[in-house]
Amino acid sequence: MTSSMADTFPGSTRARVLDLIRTRGQASRVELAAATGLTPGTITNAVRGLVDDRLVREAGRVPSDGGSPRRLLELDPRAAYSLGVQMDRSTSSIVLADFTGRILAEDSVRGAGEDPPDVVLTAIAGAVTDLLDATGVPKTSVMGVGLVTHGPQDQGRGMVLGTRPTPAWSHYPLTDTLSDAVDLPVLLENDATAAALGEQWLGEVTSDSFGVLYLASGLGGGVVNGGEVYRGPSFNSVEIGHITIDADGPLCDCGNRGCVEATSGTAAVVLRAMTEGVLPGRLSLSGERDRRLADFQLIAQAAHTGDPQALELVRSAATGLGHAAVTLVNLFGLDTVVLAGPGFSVAGSELRDGITRVLHEAAFSRELAPVDVRLSVHGSIAAALGGALLVLRSGLPTSPTFHA
Amino acid sequence: MTSSMADTFPGSTRARVLDLIRTRGQASRVELAAATGLTPGTITNAVRGLVDDRLVREAGRVPSDGGSPRRLLELDPRAAYSLGVQMDRSTSSIVLADFTGRILAEDSVRGAGEDPPDVVLTAIAGAVTDLLDATGVPKTSVMGVGLVTHGPQDQGRGMVLGTRPTPAWSHYPLTDTLSDAVDLPVLLENDATAAALGEQWLGEVTSDSFGVLYLASGLGGGVVNGGEVYRGPSFNSVEIGHITIDADGPLCDCGNRGCVEATSGTAAVVLRAMTEGVLPGRLSLSGERDRRLADFQLIAQAAHTGDPQALELVRSAATGLGHAAVTLVNLFGLDTVVLAGPGFSVAGSELRDGITRVLHEAAFSRELAPVDVRLSVHGSIAAALGGALLVLRSGLPTSPTFHA
Repeated sequence: MTSSMADTFPGSTRARVLDLIRTRGQASRVELAAATGLTPGTITNAVRGLVDDRLVREAGRVPSDGGSPRRLLELDPRAAYSLGVQMDRSTSSIVLADFTGRILAEDSVRGAGEDPPDVVLTAIAGAVTDLLDATGVPKTSVMGVGLVTHGPQDQGRGMVLGTRPTPAWSHYPLTDTLSDAVDLPVLLENDATAAALGEQWLGEVTSDSFGVLYLASGLGGGVVNGGEVYRGPSFNSVEIGHITIDADGPLCDCGNRGCVEATSGTAAVVLRAMTEGVLPGRLSLSGERDRRLADFQLIAQAAHTGDPQALELVRSAATGLGHAAVTLVNLFGLDTVVLAGPGFSVAGSELRDGITRVLHEAAFSRELAPVDVRLSVHGSIAAALGGALLVLRSGLPTSPTFHA
Repeated sequence: MTSSMADTFPGSTRARVLDLIRTRGQASRVELAAATGLTPGTITNAVRGLVDDRLVREAGRVPSDGGSPRRLLELDPRAAYSLGVQMDRSTSSIVLADFTGRILAEDSVRGAGEDPPDVVLTAIAGAVTDLLDATGVPKTSVMGVGLVTHGPQDQGRGMVLGTRPTPAWSHYPLTDTLSDAVDLPVLLENDATAAALGEQWLGEVTSDSFGVLYLASGLGGGVVNGGEVYRGPSFNSVEIGHITIDADGPLCDCGNRGCVEATSGTAAVVLRAMTEGVLPGRLSLSGERDRRLADFQLIAQAAHTGDPQALELVRSAATGLGHAAVTLVNLFGLDTVVLAGPGFSVAGSELRDGITRVLHEAAFSRELAPVDVRLSVHGSIAAALGGALLVLRSGLPTSPTFHA
């Protein structure tokens, strides 16, 4: 089922019409024809089918210049639902969205740590079932699950290809396993790409072209260009975390040396803090590998309240992240960067200020216009929501049992 | 005229049909309908117009399964011509292409150095006129000139925006000035992007997704993804030369510190060579700012023939360029990198080997498949040809005096 969903993305006339109405909230048939370039007749036929299938409904009339009033269309929020799961080493977030893309409920569960994938996916499947039970949404109305995690990925096969967090994850059938466990279609997406989609949807970014730095256990990147997510030929983009910023720097989980993730990511900050005399005791850092994002947030909290040693660590990380932002902006020609993910949820303003400073000093376009740096106000749920949106946009369910 | 050419890119049905025939060499109407998704009737009408305008002609028949033989179409090579100018600080290259995109003639002139733009453009205009005179191609048959140089650029206004090579170049009306001087439309393009187009056209790259490192006086980048050149919202992509690889490194022309262009570009190699005791004398390096690419090529030649000091300099540069290639590959998710531009024309194999080594050690996708690194065999003309191709693809001439 996973691959058939992916095959219909970005989809048929029906899918395009649904996506336009979803994005605009309400739209008339005339507006849909103008936006798609399709003929009024084609739009009328597509809308008739969507209304018959109870996916779209009339939403009233608005006056029109000289002619008959335009009849507005909207999605039926209860026509279908979608789940998004952002799976990270430190914590995983789950959102349930209705057919319009509105978040109905969210939950978080313990992250993957270094557990084997079957254990992690079983826990996620349980949380998904609990969330559906708690909201009373029947599984037969759920289109599927967008599973969002780090790369590199083979999205067609639903696998992570690298050996992180442990070799057991490499080529493990993630989507097939989760699909069997929850009895729903599952598709796989890169966390930063999903965060870019989620940020765009949540309306914090007015530009239709922007980059995302996604800071969680790792550091990911995403680019939206002209409203479309950038996808390279291999689907393993935008791997901003593994650019070298110090060729003699520390060894990275990826096996390379001096990656920005290894010098300036959340785990790197925690590893440096653990060597800083009294800091681990003063901040009650656990030092455990599975708890690095939590430890980072303790350090970020201390920095935010003025602890000078913690602030120095956060500022140093911000400089490294700033160089990553410069690279993202220079290569993709962007003027807006969104800082997203749980790594930015505590000391976001301190990190933002440091990243902004480096961008204003070093971005190639600084002579033209300053880069706009925005802090996501949605924390870790933007990526999970992006996963749910991908499912909503992936095409229409064809299962005869779809409507509950 | 410049902006009207740009407005029609990627163009109408006519332009799409012309581009398909240009890419394939020959094509039948059935093939054109299949490739465009347009109806046979639409294709037949478009082809009729193009044949009437003497842009397309019949090229014979081939047998078809069961039905009447397919009639093949081809472009009339003499229907129109196009010029491409790659303008660099050290040398500028000019190509004249026929309507099929075949190079008819090429020339090179002294580079811009630190001369003011009006002086440089006057010299280029003279060389353009000489090339047309030498080949007997009437100016009335030339669609326009694709002017290719470094970024950042405002392509709509035909200007370079930065202060390189000197502040006089910033916001100088390059395309308007050259257009007045040669009495032809002129469009502006980034050198590395044009090189990517030229490389693709010249057929050395079989993949339809690849990155280009373009090494001349500066270092530029280009990306072709799914057959289309990547263009960011600002048109100032892919500025690979100005990513920071050493935050404490040397000052760059762009005003930043430790850019890969400043640590590992051609000028950086020459500046290091000038401090190396006997090397400047042994290799007869000029040390002049305008002659840095020529000096680099002397060093590259020495490295190629085994001079250990020169080889050390080239290998060190290759490591820095390798890190730039890793960044390009990681961010855009690419599996092929083409090394193009005059900087690779002499010690290309030594540079390629060093770049390949870094990619195989550090590219994020190395666990999946090695990155294919290819040396352009077209030197500096790939970028100039890319400029000429952009003119050919920019839409059809509308001037009543167009046909000579």
